[in-house]
Amino acid sequence: MTEYNRSEKISWFLPAALFLLMLSNYTSAQTINMDSIKIQNYSNVAGQIVTTALKERKGYELLRELCMIGPRLSGSKNSLEAINWAFEKMKTFGFDSVWLQPAMVPHWERGDTESCTIINENKNLSVLALGGSVSTSEEGITAEVIEVKDFDELEKRKDELKDKIVFFNNTIDAGLVDTFSGYGKIVKQRTEGAIESAKYGAVGVLIKSITTKYDNVPHTGVMSYVDSIPKIPSAALGFQDAEYLSKEIKNNPHLKINFKLSCKTLPDAKSYNVICEIKGSEKPNEIIVVGGHLDSWDVGYGAHDDGAGCIQSLEVLDLFKRLNIKPKRTIRCVFFINEENGSRGAREYEKIAEQSGEKHIAAIESDRGGFTPEGFYVDTDSSLVFDILQSWLPVLEKAGISWIKKGGSGSDVGKIKNTAALIGYVPDDQKYFDFHHSDNDVFEEVHPRELELGTAAITVLTYLLSEEL
Amino acid sequence: MTEYNRSEKISWFLPAALFLLMLSNYTSAQTINMDSIKIQNYSNVAGQIVTTALKERKGYELLRELCMIGPRLSGSKNSLEAINWAFEKMKTFGFDSVWLQPAMVPHWERGDTESCTIINENKNLSVLALGGSVSTSEEGITAEVIEVKDFDELEKRKDELKDKIVFFNNTIDAGLVDTFSGYGKIVKQRTEGAIESAKYGAVGVLIKSITTKYDNVPHTGVMSYVDSIPKIPSAALGFQDAEYLSKEIKNNPHLKINFKLSCKTLPDAKSYNVICEIKGSEKPNEIIVVGGHLDSWDVGYGAHDDGAGCIQSLEVLDLFKRLNIKPKRTIRCVFFINEENGSRGAREYEKIAEQSGEKHIAAIESDRGGFTPEGFYVDTDSSLVFDILQSWLPVLEKAGISWIKKGGSGSDVGKIKNTAALIGYVPDDQKYFDFHHSDNDVFEEVHPRELELGTAAITVLTYLLSEEL
Repeated sequence: MTEYNRSEKISWFLPAALFLLMLSNYTSAQTINMDSIKIQNYSNVAGQIVTTALKERKGYELLRELCMIGPRLSGSKNSLEAINWAFEKMKTFGFDSVWLQPAMVPHWERGDTESCTIINENKNLSVLALGGSVSTSEEGITAEVIEVKDFDELEKRKDELKDKIVFFNNTIDAGLVDTFSGYGKIVKQRTEGAIESAKYGAVGVLIKSITTKYDNVPHTGVMSYVDSIPKIPSAALGFQDAEYLSKEIKNNPHLKINFKLSCKTLPDAKSYNVICEIKGSEKPNEIIVVGGHLDSWDVGYGAHDDGAGCIQSLEVLDLFKRLNIKPKRTIRCVFFINEENGSRGAREYEKIAEQSGEKHIAAIESDRGGFTPEGFYVDTDSSLVFDILQSWLPVLEKAGISWIKKGGSGSDVGKIKNTAALIGYVPDDQKYFDFHHSDNDVFEEVHPRELELGTAAITVLTYLLSEEL
Repeated sequence: MTEYNRSEKISWFLPAALFLLMLSNYTSAQTINMDSIKIQNYSNVAGQIVTTALKERKGYELLRELCMIGPRLSGSKNSLEAINWAFEKMKTFGFDSVWLQPAMVPHWERGDTESCTIINENKNLSVLALGGSVSTSEEGITAEVIEVKDFDELEKRKDELKDKIVFFNNTIDAGLVDTFSGYGKIVKQRTEGAIESAKYGAVGVLIKSITTKYDNVPHTGVMSYVDSIPKIPSAALGFQDAEYLSKEIKNNPHLKINFKLSCKTLPDAKSYNVICEIKGSEKPNEIIVVGGHLDSWDVGYGAHDDGAGCIQSLEVLDLFKRLNIKPKRTIRCVFFINEENGSRGAREYEKIAEQSGEKHIAAIESDRGGFTPEGFYVDTDSSLVFDILQSWLPVLEKAGISWIKKGGSGSDVGKIKNTAALIGYVPDDQKYFDFHHSDNDVFEEVHPRELELGTAAITVLTYLLSEEL
């Protein structure tokens, strides 16, 4: 996932028909309980879903196949290969529909040259261009480095920035339990560091990789420019090399580095969301979306981010087929393209959905890695809907879900309008940023049981949304 | 941990004084809520505990030191080195008391020779003697292999067992969410396979390793004999080699193997529990124990099982010191010796505690690995005590705890009598048996954030038990 805290506030209204339907089922929003026979019946289904997912590990093997294609940056050859793989794979599963939805996506390429050298020491640092960065000239930028912790310090030292390379040296606050919250607090150094630094005449930006793993593998991610301010090259340093550079700057405040990038932005490229669905048996026009994003960064294999979420979403539909569960509502799996650097797939999906007048009841996003399930965040303005979802916990517990809380869904499904609930799947997040946007994000780091238990949890919730919302 | 489902049923009674104390604080067992000011105050302390543990990672570095000693099988030189390390380390922390409690422990050694060869193929299988096994002769046992799934099949085929090597080929049921439950259902093939097979004239036992990881690393663990039945050598095969052997037996039902072990049991050895405590400021005679077991198997480094639990228990006390928290009751950390193959440390601890008339209020065991916290199992006959513990969830949630359920504590603290509650710390268990009792159980597989968040959770609960039970 990328900037989770950027997700747009959803303009939301509850369709009157749905509201009346719910009122007829539930008389009090304060004390909603699912009746015990229903709990028992749904728990039996949940048990089958969990057992099948954990025993058969079909999604895990699909994820292995997807990762074999390589990283899947929007616009890249690999991304098109992955789209084709997904489209052909979905067609083998016997769903009611499988289709591609076109979207034009940004096309940025890393290029062959990436280097960052402390000149007097001839010491090379582990470096990785940020996604969207402009290149340097062939000789690179040679300049003094000014280290700042954050934007407050940058502002205070704005008069010192001219012709310097700004080095943002901030770390995810290890003391926070919620790693996404820690990430959200400092990600601005990556996304807006170049804009804020160039305002005051800086010629380049380096950031300490935003990671919870203190190794030397650099982590990339999207960065942005505005047209009114010069566009300066920006890259991430490996955590250990960032610490080293900081120490060396203390020893020599006039330390110079040479910094070279050959990345470039090409014209927008044609790409696609990949979509499949099972038609609802009773309410085919009411849609529940479950999805993740197919694109990844161009390092590692995008296994946790977000191969896992795509494959889980696909296996939700496949588990319905394997277990011969016929949902009342239409269940649609969407592999969104371009979540990492533009969200063009999500925008296209929502546009088409609005134009066609489709009625989306709810949507679930899985984009926090393939780890052991913990809970679901629910984005809804209706306390009634929230209470209904909470009343399902005795069933969801069968798949390792401990809680339902209010919270953001995700940057792809978060764009869908007029649903009753937008939902984010929340697995254990202690390790997620060890892997995120880096060469550490490989298939071997996904555990089959953790992935499949998550798939089961999302499947159970999808089924309940279909039958009971 | 070892046979978790063997833990003795605790004979329990609630001291009258404690009961009256609790009644004065809580009027209804049905609707116990901690008042909101207390929740706020305790949550503030919990926040400090969590932040300090996650930021400073002191326990993680202690675990690295402990693992550097090597595996710590009871009676081994390494185990004594680890006892000495722990004793000296505890003395540096400024606790009120640090001491060793002697216990005689079994002393079994693996020896140099372990082999298992399919004769006609000259194919060596990955094999590891079970803990406590007798050796073979120097030439080994050469015999046909009879494969059974479980004890039911063994019983049905008892007339075929004479002079054969019995091969138990059963796997943890992957469809169960709770891996400990899956383990418990089949561990008997390891613990009692030799007894049941020798009854009918078998000359050796091989088991498929009891693991959730389908690699070829064999997993050991304790096995037992009875004096009235011949003692036959027993070993575990790597998962993949067990699958291979099964395939080969189908091809050739008279397939023979040669099987050699040189392990031996020496006289019982002197060993120790290692104990430290902080005296309670108001009720120094009321004790809360927090512990794990210092011994491990003789493969891997006992990082998750149970280096993690020991170090977490030690860091509970150290966090009180670092944060200058002065508990009302006495907090005692116990590194139990010999959990894996005899529980002599736990038996000695309880004997001495009873003789000295010590009053144990509660005890927490951490012996399920150093993974992300999920909840606590509580073993108590008092629904009042259970409800009180549940009322603390709003505080415990600060450290990632989602639930309090009735359940077993652990095989070490489970032996302590006359407490209000025996408690087992429950982290995520999806991966635990990948590592358990094998060369896979190494320091690198423990994640610092997961370990430390667990430490924080146990510390918060310990503090609440001290102040509020």
